[in-house]
Amino acid sequence: MSNFGFSELCLVNPYEVAFREARSAVKAEGILTAAREYSSVGEAVSDCALVVGTTSLGPRALEHPLRRLEYGGKLIAKKLASGPVALLFGSEKFGLSNEDVSHCHWLMRIPAREEHGSMNLGQAVAVCLYEIIRNPAAAKVKPEARRAADARELERLTERLEEVLDLSGYVHARVEGSTRMKIRRLVRRLNLNAHDAEIWMGMLRQILWKLKRDQSG
Amino acid sequence: MSNFGFSELCLVNPYEVAFREARSAVKAEGILTAAREYSSVGEAVSDCALVVGTTSLGPRALEHPLRRLEYGGKLIAKKLASGPVALLFGSEKFGLSNEDVSHCHWLMRIPAREEHGSMNLGQAVAVCLYEIIRNPAAAKVKPEARRAADARELERLTERLEEVLDLSGYVHARVEGSTRMKIRRLVRRLNLNAHDAEIWMGMLRQILWKLKRDQSG
Repeated sequence: MSNFGFSELCLVNPYEVAFREARSAVKAEGILTAAREYSSVGEAVSDCALVVGTTSLGPRALEHPLRRLEYGGKLIAKKLASGPVALLFGSEKFGLSNEDVSHCHWLMRIPAREEHGSMNLGQAVAVCLYEIIRNPAAAKVKPEARRAADARELERLTERLEEVLDLSGYVHARVEGSTRMKIRRLVRRLNLNAHDAEIWMGMLRQILWKLKRDQSG
Repeated sequence: MSNFGFSELCLVNPYEVAFREARSAVKAEGILTAAREYSSVGEAVSDCALVVGTTSLGPRALEHPLRRLEYGGKLIAKKLASGPVALLFGSEKFGLSNEDVSHCHWLMRIPAREEHGSMNLGQAVAVCLYEIIRNPAAAKVKPEARRAADARELERLTERLEEVLDLSGYVHARVEGSTRMKIRRLVRRLNLNAHDAEIWMGMLRQILWKLKRDQSG
């Protein structure tokens, strides 16, 4: 919860042993200290305009609409902008009871393998909250930490590499033209960023210096 | 891992105590029994065409491109179609070392609150694997468990409700027309499915029967 910026934890008849143990969670003490305890789901969700239950059941006949997390998460994120939303999790062993579910507007399902059945509670909560704070736009952009090398930098690199290969006897005069083109394409396919292109340039310059010195020596 | 259909767990110098304890995880024994142990990251990832490291660091100057999970997960899902991909997780306390990271093509970051710092390892793995198996198309469709009530059903319900309100003295003759329209709109806004419309119809029929009996009695 703390990792994804959620702070209001409500517990309905918590199992005291597990609850006390949880108090040691790293950097989440605030949430646990402020957690409110209730004796019924109805009381716990009373201030929420939307109540969503989670279930590990696959699509089957239910009184409630069942939504996959990808879609349900979106609806929850939208609703959260205007007021509190309750996301209900049952116990790992039994899930939510029919009485719990009757307080829900709809149910949500993590698209996990049905054969597996139950899911670790902490992991289920993390996955649901991640989907809610997930930014769809971030899946489309391609944020690069480094500026890509531009054509001039790549051309300089290509020339240096050609020189090195020339001096090393890699390029045969007969196929020179096609080899040069191959090398140019090869360098482009590296998808170098400007920073790495600079490092490669330095390496090639050094090799070139050594090759020339050995030749003249 | 088992919840999301991943089966190949590789461990590099695992902490034996934690590893042995993990053997009791519900329904995931197969993965733990088949887990392979290695003494170096290099060996563990040797058959992978793509190696991605996970980090809790925010966007900062790094030698490696840093991608948010929403985008990185997509790239991994794509690559998985053609061969094995390694997703590296460090220890909860220290994360991946520089040596570990040097085996990676790029790094991936869960968009969690940076103030929080570390994240529970099992939860981090669950969130990453969920993003990889997540179906973007499922976020767009609106799968309804039940057929929505059609106009005829809603109209029958409206008529029954009007009758009940008439008999109860709710509808005043003077404003009859506008009240009826209000009731019709009110019923439409309920967004009833066919199943629930039937239940409401049954309730209204029963109320109607009682009202009529009391009137004639």
